[in-house]
Amino acid sequence: MKVAIMGFGVVGSGVAEVIANNADHIRTHSSVALCLSHILDIRDFPGSPFAPYLTKDFNDILNDDETKIVVETMGGVEPAFTFVSACLEKGKHVVTSNKELVAKKGDILLEKARANNVNFLFEASVGGGIPIIRPLSVCLAANRIREIAGILNGTTNFILSKMITDNMDFQTALRLAQDNGYAEKDPTADVEGIDACRKICILASLASGSHIYPDGILTEGISKLTKDDVAYAAKFGCVIKLIARAKALESGQWCVTVSPALVPEDHMLAGVCDVFNACFVRGDMVGDVLLYGRGAGKLATASAVVGDVIDCAQHDKERRTFGWGKAKDGLLCDPMTAPAKLFVRVKTADKAADTAKLNALLPGCDFAESAADDLVFITPEAAEGDLRNAIAPFNAASVIRLF
Amino acid sequence: MKVAIMGFGVVGSGVAEVIANNADHIRTHSSVALCLSHILDIRDFPGSPFAPYLTKDFNDILNDDETKIVVETMGGVEPAFTFVSACLEKGKHVVTSNKELVAKKGDILLEKARANNVNFLFEASVGGGIPIIRPLSVCLAANRIREIAGILNGTTNFILSKMITDNMDFQTALRLAQDNGYAEKDPTADVEGIDACRKICILASLASGSHIYPDGILTEGISKLTKDDVAYAAKFGCVIKLIARAKALESGQWCVTVSPALVPEDHMLAGVCDVFNACFVRGDMVGDVLLYGRGAGKLATASAVVGDVIDCAQHDKERRTFGWGKAKDGLLCDPMTAPAKLFVRVKTADKAADTAKLNALLPGCDFAESAADDLVFITPEAAEGDLRNAIAPFNAASVIRLF
Repeated sequence: MKVAIMGFGVVGSGVAEVIANNADHIRTHSSVALCLSHILDIRDFPGSPFAPYLTKDFNDILNDDETKIVVETMGGVEPAFTFVSACLEKGKHVVTSNKELVAKKGDILLEKARANNVNFLFEASVGGGIPIIRPLSVCLAANRIREIAGILNGTTNFILSKMITDNMDFQTALRLAQDNGYAEKDPTADVEGIDACRKICILASLASGSHIYPDGILTEGISKLTKDDVAYAAKFGCVIKLIARAKALESGQWCVTVSPALVPEDHMLAGVCDVFNACFVRGDMVGDVLLYGRGAGKLATASAVVGDVIDCAQHDKERRTFGWGKAKDGLLCDPMTAPAKLFVRVKTADKAADTAKLNALLPGCDFAESAADDLVFITPEAAEGDLRNAIAPFNAASVIRLF
Repeated sequence: MKVAIMGFGVVGSGVAEVIANNADHIRTHSSVALCLSHILDIRDFPGSPFAPYLTKDFNDILNDDETKIVVETMGGVEPAFTFVSACLEKGKHVVTSNKELVAKKGDILLEKARANNVNFLFEASVGGGIPIIRPLSVCLAANRIREIAGILNGTTNFILSKMITDNMDFQTALRLAQDNGYAEKDPTADVEGIDACRKICILASLASGSHIYPDGILTEGISKLTKDDVAYAAKFGCVIKLIARAKALESGQWCVTVSPALVPEDHMLAGVCDVFNACFVRGDMVGDVLLYGRGAGKLATASAVVGDVIDCAQHDKERRTFGWGKAKDGLLCDPMTAPAKLFVRVKTADKAADTAKLNALLPGCDFAESAADDLVFITPEAAEGDLRNAIAPFNAASVIRLF
């Protein structure tokens, strides 16, 4: 079975390596013989063992009728969207790891795949090598999904682990991440939660059945977190994680958010450290499920891509019933109307007075022992907007959701 | 799509409920309309809402050409094996939760399914509702699986959790499990590791590609564990879990064992408590993956069964390429030849003398602070048989593998 790869970066070259190195295993175990046909990239790779496959011309792939499966590992929306559309319309299956493409154009590409009786698969787009998409869409298909919550970004989880375990401040931990190749020179997409947002939108689209776009999602990253926040969270028996969350409400609406959150130390998500990721799913029949592993990395992500490729190659007589439909107006609720509890750290010149003022405005807060100029508390549960209004008179240095 | 159920016990009735209660969701989300045709059981269920489907005659299912998917939730090997074989040979898909059937007859039934171009699926047979079989066989298909290790039995994990967290002894914790419906009146199959053994054999068969039978597996349960063992494990920073493990060796052989094991507190498996289960998988490309959730329970297990049913119903033009082949001679290694580290608790009348004797026989042991009449240590790593020989002169009250 001939497989082409579009984009010979980290993941694309990983896919080539997995296909080459594990060919015998794949043939024996999965009864398919995968071989590379073309690798598309505008760059040159002198000395690469895969040089014979390289081409700069997309038409070499499009017009090769023997290549029925195309891997897209270019990243970004264009020209990936144009190339993927052309492949699907030509009756080729497409497997991608491109979360931005799926998050922004998933519904369109899934429809093109359906219309042309081929597969558009993207296990690798969320959680790298961790099985998430297929468990959610196939194994848990009998369930109404009530909630999905994930630590879906390795960069931020590495940084937070260093802040928690090694008492580092954010900037120091970020530099360490960059030195270790866990963060980009421009780390904005990871650190500000944009990457995690794309991923939760993919999962929420799958769970809800309707496309949910990243643009509409209230997203907050980790760049404002301090060592004090981490220390006070510990006093409440919690660790801070960047949590991307999609929750189904009684009303039928979905509440989707990305933000730091206090996670109780005894929750399985609290044990997810460094570059590991995890996705927690609650289904109405199965209860709670956690899927954990390496959320990024060349071979881990390639493993998920090739898993999808093998599935296509084994089952070429019938496409997988899979996907979601168009965005639905009014599907997303305003997170400010959803119930929440907030961790709040207020800078105070008069703790006793501020405590009294707070207790009058918002009874039922749970206070932590804190420095003289810190008033640190967890609010009772109420609509998030109401809580934020109640604490507005105070000089809040940190406001962090509870998971 | 008509679905029959054979066996109207806990799981079978759960399957009927999931199909009935989530019919709308399944129709909307998965584009299939499932309906029950027949429910086979020798018992009567007066007043059951599913009474109209009940039959005592297997031929009602076998001869109903409109029923293309049959669920087997009878348990045990016969008559399940006879009925499942007949269904497969009549061109019906079979979905089962029956771990004993799959562990003992899986290769035969997978071959019958292949020969008759139908599916034989069993996600629910290992880990209840947790997605394990499909992630292992599809998502991770590009990997050579190096190791699988699981907490695969809810009864024993509940008992161990009570021993660890609440300082209970084994018998008290067992009685509590029975009172709560987490253990049978005769708890042997769970407590002695037989249930976990069947499950790891299914996973090891999948990973190795050859049927591995439970009979050949060195299996040890939890009934000999004491509160002292639990307390000393904690001194080494470990918790005791019943670990079912399959490890691929360099030689190509597999080492499969079931026994209590000391698991470091910071390992993800250590956080798996009460009736929750988890399966840890190490693949050569993806690295470490953990799949966690409810390993038993009526609706959780039914969720996995119905997930498989939906998959069959959606994709009826092409069977899933899935399974393993016949048992291979010499595939299993003798665990005594595999490298191991052991936790040992020796009753001693003269600790100093016994310590000196041990250090001469087996240098490099790591000792814990212990009561005057306990000599407690972890051995260095060596072939397990050699370690056991070395400690044979001592009066070992407990010998527990390290994970």
